[in-house]
Amino acid sequence: MRAPTPARPASRPQRSGGRPAAPWRGEGAEEGGPVWLFGIHAVRDALLNPARRRRRLIATRNAADRLAEAIAAAGIAPEIADARRFPAPLDPGSVHQGAALEAEPLDWGGLEARCAPGPADPAPLVLLLDRVTDPHNVGAVLRSAEVFGARAVIAPRRHAAPETGALAKAASGALERQPYLRVANLARAMEALRELGYLVVGLDGAASLEIADAVAGARGRPLALALGAEGAGLRQLTRETCDHLARIAAASDFASLNVSNAAAVALYAAARR
Amino acid sequence: MRAPTPARPASRPQRSGGRPAAPWRGEGAEEGGPVWLFGIHAVRDALLNPARRRRRLIATRNAADRLAEAIAAAGIAPEIADARRFPAPLDPGSVHQGAALEAEPLDWGGLEARCAPGPADPAPLVLLLDRVTDPHNVGAVLRSAEVFGARAVIAPRRHAAPETGALAKAASGALERQPYLRVANLARAMEALRELGYLVVGLDGAASLEIADAVAGARGRPLALALGAEGAGLRQLTRETCDHLARIAAASDFASLNVSNAAAVALYAAARR
Repeated sequence: MRAPTPARPASRPQRSGGRPAAPWRGEGAEEGGPVWLFGIHAVRDALLNPARRRRRLIATRNAADRLAEAIAAAGIAPEIADARRFPAPLDPGSVHQGAALEAEPLDWGGLEARCAPGPADPAPLVLLLDRVTDPHNVGAVLRSAEVFGARAVIAPRRHAAPETGALAKAASGALERQPYLRVANLARAMEALRELGYLVVGLDGAASLEIADAVAGARGRPLALALGAEGAGLRQLTRETCDHLARIAAASDFASLNVSNAAAVALYAAARR
Repeated sequence: MRAPTPARPASRPQRSGGRPAAPWRGEGAEEGGPVWLFGIHAVRDALLNPARRRRRLIATRNAADRLAEAIAAAGIAPEIADARRFPAPLDPGSVHQGAALEAEPLDWGGLEARCAPGPADPAPLVLLLDRVTDPHNVGAVLRSAEVFGARAVIAPRRHAAPETGALAKAASGALERQPYLRVANLARAMEALRELGYLVVGLDGAASLEIADAVAGARGRPLALALGAEGAGLRQLTRETCDHLARIAAASDFASLNVSNAAAVALYAAARR
């Protein structure tokens, strides 16, 4: 693997065919207040994202030098701090590399506007996460979702990983670019997607259909993939709201795949449909 | 995702067609001394693995109760400790859940014996990791390798994630079952695999061949997949020692995939060849 590509904050909002990413808080980001992003990579990407509303930047002299270009682009004055007494309220063990940015969660707009198929993209792909709470897993899922061109990652407002610094770091920049929509009710979001023309496929180790065969039914058509948390899987209502359930063909129990790895495989199969 | 399947320590050694997993230290585990495994899941799996040589078990009363069956099976006497003054030498932040086991690294034997195709398994799959040093990534790779039935995960003795508690926890039990071979020289290991009949495919974002097409050439034939670390990719010598280079077809830069996610996709494509 090589280093992730640099931030391209302007590319996603234009691609959706819906309204552009709004720089204000709204229905898409009701669940949380400001968050502290940390680490050179995550802070640089957030500084370079014009849709990101920033409150405070704390940096060591060294980190401020490394971020000079992004700081100039963002037009924010860093508060210079000593690395040994770094004043940002981060969890102990957070590898901040001398840079922390307090920012508002991004608002990716409403589900219909974000996910509606359009003439330029008649067969979008979205991912639904049913109570996946681990920020490292969700961060890795956002990276994979971006790589495979998913229109959005959708999670319930409660019982999902919030947009935190740990998630941003695991996402390695993808949090700034990959729409992460929080909805009040996942089953209703699935119904809304179906009304937009989506085929909804849930991953379930006990299914008989293989994922590549399941997604073949959505060739040229919008496709939503639903994944549950490790341990719990899809909740019953989520499972019942799917058009099909499918498993990942494997030598042994697919259920022991890490959720972000299962998501990567499903996205790959879907992108090749 | 549901919970991982229980430990099945006896299944792997019988599958390889080579010699069984030796319970003693040998050529396969020269790089490290004993390690501290921690967390209920990792400790239980290590207690239930007859090939695992154990030195000390430290547990809270509560953890010892939860592990009672595995402790009885292993025939080891736990040292009962207070959770607030847990005496095992773990990194701060290690979520030990009241259980820590000092154990020898597993010895999976030599590369030829472990990876040779046999009448029962004429087309084995192995994964090579070129300087992947993050234990969480390697742990997740071991899980995926097990799910997709890889014969072994092979890494250089130096510049690779050692078999530590953090790796074991990320592997969620797979460390006890999935052969993780450390070799002196990765390029020589690739040559040895080629002499055993393997096609060696390296993942490279700049390749023109797609992974599913690359592995189709190894239908019914042993296949080795080589992946490099995020940031660095495959080293030049590793790249030159591959039969083919291939990329994962994606909407954007495949290089920004997390290495364990890239491994999962490659293993999936390989398992379906």
